[in-house]
Amino acid sequence: MRILAQLSPGFDPAAPWLDCEVLAARDTRLFEHYKVRRRSPHTGQEHDFTRLICPEWVNVVAFTAPALGGELLLVEQFRHGIDASTLEIIGGVCSPGEDPALAAARELLEETGHAAARWVSLGSCSPNPAVQNNRCHFFLALDCAPVADLALDPSEELRVWAASLDEALDLLRSGAMDHALVMAAFLRLFLWPGWGDLERTLRAGA
Amino acid sequence: MRILAQLSPGFDPAAPWLDCEVLAARDTRLFEHYKVRRRSPHTGQEHDFTRLICPEWVNVVAFTAPALGGELLLVEQFRHGIDASTLEIIGGVCSPGEDPALAAARELLEETGHAAARWVSLGSCSPNPAVQNNRCHFFLALDCAPVADLALDPSEELRVWAASLDEALDLLRSGAMDHALVMAAFLRLFLWPGWGDLERTLRAGA
Repeated sequence: MRILAQLSPGFDPAAPWLDCEVLAARDTRLFEHYKVRRRSPHTGQEHDFTRLICPEWVNVVAFTAPALGGELLLVEQFRHGIDASTLEIIGGVCSPGEDPALAAARELLEETGHAAARWVSLGSCSPNPAVQNNRCHFFLALDCAPVADLALDPSEELRVWAASLDEALDLLRSGAMDHALVMAAFLRLFLWPGWGDLERTLRAGA
Repeated sequence: MRILAQLSPGFDPAAPWLDCEVLAARDTRLFEHYKVRRRSPHTGQEHDFTRLICPEWVNVVAFTAPALGGELLLVEQFRHGIDASTLEIIGGVCSPGEDPALAAARELLEETGHAAARWVSLGSCSPNPAVQNNRCHFFLALDCAPVADLALDPSEELRVWAASLDEALDLLRSGAMDHALVMAAFLRLFLWPGWGDLERTLRAGA
């Protein structure tokens, strides 16, 4: 694996952020958080449930063009839920009303500076149907090439990596790449009818 | 696929619950919700982040014994995040201090009435490292057999199904089984070194 891009020479994704303030919260820019009392259609009993109203999400499995190595693009960034850095595929949040396919192309460009020549929909998943109302949409981006600098939010600090297919599989097997939505995207990729042909193409170029 | 167990003869997992009350919430029994202001070690800038402090979760891929059909145990239940029913593998929340392996066996028993003769750890994932601090632990339960009645919380209403391996793969391919954590569990199963042998055993018994 090799680093394709990073914020600054001194950037260390393992360096922890410092807590300035910790507040019990209600709404955030990520979701609206509700407690709902509902009545069962079967028992007539009432129970309380948690509901997070979330925007749609996208995740992108992106491979560079064969002439560029046919490598998987990965993003290493600090994640504040686990207070540690992760390796992930490209991902992000759809803007209100934004088509998920356009959000996928936008996130690929913003997070890696790459654009894809070919796009394939890999379906979608329910990130957590017990409490969240949204879906995460999966896309395969093929023949990616660098076309621009990274364009990140001020709070986003990340490094872009390129990994061979075998390196990516090792990251999944070892658990080093362990984000549930990334794993779900790879399951959809491996079940996609075109995966066998793509795997042969990627291995032939490696 | 065939139904193994359900709450009552009139139980319909597609029947919607009725909202009695909807409140903007803060803490629930599922997680504590915080807004955290943190300072970057790289830029010195402060930014706000959402954090959900969650208990550990478990998911179980459970197959019945060959003599019972070597079928996958699935749970169909109403999910209040998406306000619809889902098909999922067995899953649940660890009690405080509970070993995930024991929680897996407890959930298998409570949700399906089955016990397993053999257990394999399939690793774990980070359900959402951007905002959640917990992990979901995956287990493979083999040679399962019914040993007890279901033991559900009053708010849990579900049907237990048994599916052949091919039916389970079709559910994943078609997107009918689309819970991200269920998909991540199957990715871990398919990357597990023993999967090839298990697949042959399950197909030989089918």
